[in-house]
Amino acid sequence: MSSTAAAPFTADDYRARIARAAASAAEAGLAGLLVAPGPDLAHLTGYRPTADTERLTLLVVPAHGAPHLVVPALEAGDAARAPGAAALTLRPWTDADDPYAAATALLDPEGAFGISDNAWSLHLLALQRALPRTAYRGLSDVLPMLRAVKDDRELARVAAAGAAADAAYEEILRVRFAGRRESEIAADLAALLLAHGHSQVDFTVVGSGPNGADPHHEAGERVVAEGDMVVLDFGGLKDGYGSDTTRTVHVGEPTPEERRVHDTVRAAQEAGCAAVRPGAACQDVDRAARAVIEDAGYGPYFIHRTGHGIGVTTHEPPYMIEGEERPLVPGMCFSVEPGIYLPGRFGVRIEDIVAVTGTGGRRLNNTPRELAIVE
Amino acid sequence: MSSTAAAPFTADDYRARIARAAASAAEAGLAGLLVAPGPDLAHLTGYRPTADTERLTLLVVPAHGAPHLVVPALEAGDAARAPGAAALTLRPWTDADDPYAAATALLDPEGAFGISDNAWSLHLLALQRALPRTAYRGLSDVLPMLRAVKDDRELARVAAAGAAADAAYEEILRVRFAGRRESEIAADLAALLLAHGHSQVDFTVVGSGPNGADPHHEAGERVVAEGDMVVLDFGGLKDGYGSDTTRTVHVGEPTPEERRVHDTVRAAQEAGCAAVRPGAACQDVDRAARAVIEDAGYGPYFIHRTGHGIGVTTHEPPYMIEGEERPLVPGMCFSVEPGIYLPGRFGVRIEDIVAVTGTGGRRLNNTPRELAIVE
Repeated sequence: MSSTAAAPFTADDYRARIARAAASAAEAGLAGLLVAPGPDLAHLTGYRPTADTERLTLLVVPAHGAPHLVVPALEAGDAARAPGAAALTLRPWTDADDPYAAATALLDPEGAFGISDNAWSLHLLALQRALPRTAYRGLSDVLPMLRAVKDDRELARVAAAGAAADAAYEEILRVRFAGRRESEIAADLAALLLAHGHSQVDFTVVGSGPNGADPHHEAGERVVAEGDMVVLDFGGLKDGYGSDTTRTVHVGEPTPEERRVHDTVRAAQEAGCAAVRPGAACQDVDRAARAVIEDAGYGPYFIHRTGHGIGVTTHEPPYMIEGEERPLVPGMCFSVEPGIYLPGRFGVRIEDIVAVTGTGGRRLNNTPRELAIVE
Repeated sequence: MSSTAAAPFTADDYRARIARAAASAAEAGLAGLLVAPGPDLAHLTGYRPTADTERLTLLVVPAHGAPHLVVPALEAGDAARAPGAAALTLRPWTDADDPYAAATALLDPEGAFGISDNAWSLHLLALQRALPRTAYRGLSDVLPMLRAVKDDRELARVAAAGAAADAAYEEILRVRFAGRRESEIAADLAALLLAHGHSQVDFTVVGSGPNGADPHHEAGERVVAEGDMVVLDFGGLKDGYGSDTTRTVHVGEPTPEERRVHDTVRAAQEAGCAAVRPGAACQDVDRAARAVIEDAGYGPYFIHRTGHGIGVTTHEPPYMIEGEERPLVPGMCFSVEPGIYLPGRFGVRIEDIVAVTGTGGRRLNNTPRELAIVE
């Protein structure tokens, strides 16, 4: 089964994202941004080099001025075909050139720059050597929300990835659970995500029985049995944007306690989603979900934050966590995923991706959240 | 088809590699090495975290003293299961700790450290902030040969990866070339590498006719035709170690000129391999292969270096290139891959991985190098 292709991003989309990034840099007192291959470069230019290597590829976004992409000459053709290339000036370098001289010629030698978290140390050290009076700060330290607000076309991609994950979930309910290994069900989930248009599967958690009580369990050799609660948490990238959803299912009839725990998590997830609105603090979403679980007496068993952002990666800012006071802004996209984990027994988690709208939140996962019974 | 499992590395293997790395650090005047997730960490510990993230994982190898692995507490279990874990002291940190304080407590605050090329800038900047008088140098700048000499068990893995690539080549000769797209033949090659035990395919170049004259061409939509020369260059990882081999085949009978060019490259590759011996300079291998091509009048059409190292990655030091005067050492492993590229017409390249022995070189690819005729 395949899905319809996403509407292509245009050079204007990327031009607007770069302009927003430059304005954020100026506001933070930076002379500009140094963007390495990876999620930041994909977001700002659509360019995803096939490999991140010792050969310098670096997007320089000055706070004021034109963006330039320093790129190995052999890869300049690929870069020029990136959807955002028209918004950039390419600055190719050959083996006869010093790539760091090409880069530093574009920098204010006394300025401070934000640099992609994952930029190679080899490159940072060479820039520091070439321009000893510049200063550098990690992008997630200085501009943690750089990619957090998605434009409409990006939201459409996150929504499409969510719909594909939902379709995968609908189908996994029809497979056999009892008597099969977690790893086999995880393989089914991965195949379904790919069948529904994902290009990459990042995780397929199948946490059955006591394994579900470990939120970091992925999928193992345990054979699922009648009477098991099973946490299913899966996602990846579709058309360059992420999915991430969790449902907890039960093999056969649940006990009253299992129902009660599941109902509590469902109410907590509902409360978390209801707390999403522009201007609320990120921590308000965490508090709203956590209060329901605490009121039910399960507070000590909700042992992680309530959510994380999603975009060109499946985990990124903003984080829905106590102490994160930054406000929600329309276009932010993140998970709301409370859980209860009873050590040695079972776990329950329910997760949807939610986008902040002008007035509240819109769920991008829409399969039933009631406890599904599987065979 | 599958292959036999590789003999597992032991903690003693890793202990020896770490001791060698510490000695190299001391010799280079460094206080120690800071090793990030990626090839360096895989080589020294066998630990390959599932993702490289903003959560600090860092192996500290002092020039004198015990190695420590700083690792997120949630991932400490995975790290402890790595084959080299017994050679290390784990230093787990939780969300309540400052991971950089954990790391810098292990460092000489006035020392100079080599740091993995691909270590995240976010982490390097935090270390620089925490210990402003330390100095850092890129590992490939200061210790380019850190991973270049393989121990016997590593050589066995590179040899096994080479044998698997050879088996893939033997089978690709039996598929249909004429009338099929390069991309289809590339997919066949990838499937064969996987069938012969590779866990990862890094490249499957199929350069037919004029595409073969571009050494950076991968595989495209061109339909292979009777009379085409076709460059096949493919490799990936098997049991954590790399393969990389090239053969050039012909669809139907070649012309005398095609034969002459192929014979020239074959003689050049033979000469390059024959130049491999301990104490020879890397550039001697390049010169030996290049001389044959120059003598035949094709010098201007051999437009790249003769070879590159291979190990836990498919491209790494040492490089067989003019100007690289460092000596060959038993245990080094690299490609010998001269080529002739006639723009707009066709290309020929022949490549084997060669290991330096006590007295010469040993090829780890052993399929026939004569021009194979395919259909």
